[in-house]
Amino acid sequence: MSEFSITERNQVKRRKDRARYDKSTIYQIIDEAMFCHIGFIQDGRPYVIPTLHARREDELLIHGAVASRLLKHIREGNEVSISIAILDALVLAKSVFHHSVNYRSVVLFGKGKLIEEEDKKLEALRHFTEQLIPGQWKYARQPTPAELKATAVVSISIEEASAKIREGSPVDEQGDQDLPIWAGLLPVTHCIGPPVRADYTDVNIPLPEHILKKVKNG
Amino acid sequence: MSEFSITERNQVKRRKDRARYDKSTIYQIIDEAMFCHIGFIQDGRPYVIPTLHARREDELLIHGAVASRLLKHIREGNEVSISIAILDALVLAKSVFHHSVNYRSVVLFGKGKLIEEEDKKLEALRHFTEQLIPGQWKYARQPTPAELKATAVVSISIEEASAKIREGSPVDEQGDQDLPIWAGLLPVTHCIGPPVRADYTDVNIPLPEHILKKVKNG
Repeated sequence: MSEFSITERNQVKRRKDRARYDKSTIYQIIDEAMFCHIGFIQDGRPYVIPTLHARREDELLIHGAVASRLLKHIREGNEVSISIAILDALVLAKSVFHHSVNYRSVVLFGKGKLIEEEDKKLEALRHFTEQLIPGQWKYARQPTPAELKATAVVSISIEEASAKIREGSPVDEQGDQDLPIWAGLLPVTHCIGPPVRADYTDVNIPLPEHILKKVKNG
Repeated sequence: MSEFSITERNQVKRRKDRARYDKSTIYQIIDEAMFCHIGFIQDGRPYVIPTLHARREDELLIHGAVASRLLKHIREGNEVSISIAILDALVLAKSVFHHSVNYRSVVLFGKGKLIEEEDKKLEALRHFTEQLIPGQWKYARQPTPAELKATAVVSISIEEASAKIREGSPVDEQGDQDLPIWAGLLPVTHCIGPPVRADYTDVNIPLPEHILKKVKNG
């Protein structure tokens, strides 16, 4: 399956001209964003909470303390809605009305389950760390059995998903285009670094290659 | 009131040591973030959708097309949960277990109502534009009555809110601190610019001072 199903419920925010349903577009947005916002219902009330995520095939991995109420809720198999958004530019038009932002966003729905087996949990955490900074899992000190026990990892199967994208130039009315007003884009980007050494890191320990690469590539 | 009430329901994600309930901290985070994720319940299902926001005193302003289903849902007075998160740094520890991120996040609850009077709507849109780029409202072409009619603006009263913040250095176990591993922070920042002129903006139109300021100050 390379497309997600288009159903009534995920059309809630999809203006037709900005919607995308192909997996490659959707997954690229999920992978570029480091965190997501998870929505769920508890005692009849809506909750939204930000958390880090990592995608592995058609599942989203979430982790946290075993005591986390969010993870408890998810691992009980309740449906969640997850929102991810990346801001790419402020779009300044000649008219106030046509001001906008360029962005890439994904809304997905799925149900979660706890990853219980120790080796699968370890593998999920490895994937998580490697997606954040490739090379870091082997470089850092591995989890002890006690640490592993204190960490809960939940896998959410991505059942429905859609992306919404606005890109490119502002759009002004024909009659406004010659107004003596500057219209254009102010791109927004994420910058990583420069690195800040922890007090207890000996000054003679070099910054390893894979961390330098992360700073360089963002 | 300078503190929000601490109730059972907004403790869902508040690890005690990271939680803050004072308005100045909470409002600073809301104002720095340009967009939020709104969670609501429709037909018994959780939905989360990203949207731009602007705070004015104890209300959050949201706007969009009159036909928007999200806005329709909010303006009917249903409770929504809003999540805002700003990522400040990747926190690299010597052990995988103590890897983390520095962030500032807010979760708030409120109910919305439509701003109907034309002058109040115009004032809300002015506030919205000015919060995005101070000086832009007067600089750009003002909304026509038809444009104003096509735009819905909703005000969400902030009834409960809490912030959660992680800041500072990684924290490693005493026994790990001398390991020959680099631990520290990789700061994450937003950068704005350089500006990209729209094709239909005459090259002789200078970039105005207030936009240059936005690029400079972020």
